[in-house]
Amino acid sequence: MSGRPTPRSLAILGSTGSIGRSALDVVRGLPGRFRVTALAAHSKWKDLLRQVEEFSPRVVALSDGAAAGKLRSALAGRRVRVLSGEEGVVEAACLPDTDVVLSAIVGAAGLRPTFEAIRAGKSIALANKETVVMAGTLVMREAARRGVEILPVDSEHSAIFQAMCCGKREEIARVILTGSGGPFRGLSTRALARVTPRQALNHPTWRMGPKVTIDSATLMNKALEVIEAHFLFGLEVDRIEVLIHPQSIVHSLVEFVDGSVIAQMGMPDMRAPIQHALTWPRRCACSARRLDLAEVRELRFEKPDWKRFPAVALGFEAARRGGTAPAALNAANEIAVQAFLEERLGFTGIAVVAARVLKGHRFVEQPTLDEILAVDREARASADDLVSHKRV
Amino acid sequence: MSGRPTPRSLAILGSTGSIGRSALDVVRGLPGRFRVTALAAHSKWKDLLRQVEEFSPRVVALSDGAAAGKLRSALAGRRVRVLSGEEGVVEAACLPDTDVVLSAIVGAAGLRPTFEAIRAGKSIALANKETVVMAGTLVMREAARRGVEILPVDSEHSAIFQAMCCGKREEIARVILTGSGGPFRGLSTRALARVTPRQALNHPTWRMGPKVTIDSATLMNKALEVIEAHFLFGLEVDRIEVLIHPQSIVHSLVEFVDGSVIAQMGMPDMRAPIQHALTWPRRCACSARRLDLAEVRELRFEKPDWKRFPAVALGFEAARRGGTAPAALNAANEIAVQAFLEERLGFTGIAVVAARVLKGHRFVEQPTLDEILAVDREARASADDLVSHKRV
Repeated sequence: MSGRPTPRSLAILGSTGSIGRSALDVVRGLPGRFRVTALAAHSKWKDLLRQVEEFSPRVVALSDGAAAGKLRSALAGRRVRVLSGEEGVVEAACLPDTDVVLSAIVGAAGLRPTFEAIRAGKSIALANKETVVMAGTLVMREAARRGVEILPVDSEHSAIFQAMCCGKREEIARVILTGSGGPFRGLSTRALARVTPRQALNHPTWRMGPKVTIDSATLMNKALEVIEAHFLFGLEVDRIEVLIHPQSIVHSLVEFVDGSVIAQMGMPDMRAPIQHALTWPRRCACSARRLDLAEVRELRFEKPDWKRFPAVALGFEAARRGGTAPAALNAANEIAVQAFLEERLGFTGIAVVAARVLKGHRFVEQPTLDEILAVDREARASADDLVSHKRV
Repeated sequence: MSGRPTPRSLAILGSTGSIGRSALDVVRGLPGRFRVTALAAHSKWKDLLRQVEEFSPRVVALSDGAAAGKLRSALAGRRVRVLSGEEGVVEAACLPDTDVVLSAIVGAAGLRPTFEAIRAGKSIALANKETVVMAGTLVMREAARRGVEILPVDSEHSAIFQAMCCGKREEIARVILTGSGGPFRGLSTRALARVTPRQALNHPTWRMGPKVTIDSATLMNKALEVIEAHFLFGLEVDRIEVLIHPQSIVHSLVEFVDGSVIAQMGMPDMRAPIQHALTWPRRCACSARRLDLAEVRELRFEKPDWKRFPAVALGFEAARRGGTAPAALNAANEIAVQAFLEERLGFTGIAVVAARVLKGHRFVEQPTLDEILAVDREARASADDLVSHKRV
């Protein structure tokens, strides 16, 4: 027998997005270590077709029915099932022979498939933070019940997960989430109001999809990450801090009760945390560029400016309130970001919409999944209403 | 029963030195967690007397016979045994009811007592790097045979020890030892030649004893730490690097094969790594000042200049040669530092003496402890000869 490990069988939800493509790059870089069982995406059927040709999954799914039809025709006669709709994506997430599901669908659409994969006992590599943001209590309870591991893919949470290995859970004093501060770190509130989508999509350190890039410019990504860290690691909100680090090299830090601070660092390259989640508890060689601190010369840090970037405070507020508050914040933000990208809302309007919806939504303290999804819909409608009637 | 852990019984070798006093500060800060069984020092009997009054050890030892006599008189009628000479220190290190021995004697004098404590099965908190530098192979083999844990107290090795928890031993790509670069980082070779002991004793970030402070100014401390890391962690020399970090906040880093770099940070305060070694595998609250990166604003790094600070290269050379090479380097350096402090040798002469003795010494590939001690004596004589006859 050879010393090679059995390949891990992997389903990727959101395979045509930024994270999904990087994950397939990781698979490509570690030949023999993974077998791709299923790929799922929203509508990019031509991209998915190319992925099918390279990775030969047994099942593919597209949530967009028309796109699924086109892919089905293109794949006629091939040994691959083409599923469609949200149910198709859920089925692709729950195949019996899958070990790990990479949940990389952007936004609230990732929640149901991820939740069902947890219920099916799959290990989860979690890039879709909305799953934990919207339904943190339910998701973590379900994962605990099924003995399912949830491995973070977000570079910040991956860093925390790694740094936490240096001590016991009860020895953690603080978790410090770093953020680049986005491209507008230095702008005044007045200048921020005039920011265009084109400017906002140009992120200084990370290459990401448009939604995440805008979140990173408003610092709403840190707001969502605070909520994610709170649920994922079972940390009290008061133990979570946000620190601006424009270079995105220190991915986050954990401070223990004895004052020892453990930082996880690396060049900003999403393949690193993706690979970490997919190969855990092993570490394998990675093609991401190596960090050379002598070349970097200095690592810079500063406090976030909560006045100019009010989104951060909304994250802490929603995490403290719990219940449906994080879901409402997340939904309102998705609509507001979309409106900003379509130039129907100003940049600073995003946080204003999010704050109003968070404050005014029909709060449920211990919601079911259906109640969360209802609040999600209602919050979207409220946000849309605020934008459409130019109430912001 | 209370939830308090049984106190750990602790012997401190070198209790009146910088590390020893900080260790007693740690003991003071964690009431009920330690019981001090023995304290040993070289000659500072008055300091030791005060420590006896505060910590009530059962045994004390002074390697200086005359000082031991004075302490014995001062303690007449008290329930504490006063031992003297090297044998006394060894006996204090090996008391049957001691769990952990903090080895904090400066220089080669720490080797025998530490080695005997390992043979007696004691856990070792190791601040005396000479033990591992001089006799790394023997010491680590003996520790493995007795199932003894050696916990590093050096801030750099403590950092590596902590960061290594984030992966498996075989997943380590590199270990990066940081060093402040000492107070003369920016000086030319010509200016270095004129440095006085008073200037050299003024370290920018750490408060330490004179020998260690001079080693830190010549970068010989990094040379010795490279050797220490090589033996302590069983790392090939090529996996060890040195990085200058003037602020001494990042205490060292470990890079894993996947490019993930784990750094251990904290304010420069020796109580932190001492406490870590003494309480391991627990972490307890520590009175060292907390790190605030937003206040620090930037962490700076640069490559060491091996031309102006040739000591670093000597460490790598000695670690690669193995055998008696590290012992010869260490012994020559101790004599040269002493000569510099007495103004009998210039600052740049220290590395010259060390290099000559390292090159010319009677090399033994697999030495016994006695052969190591013989090389130690010979190397001292050679170094003294070079200094006395102004051959440098």
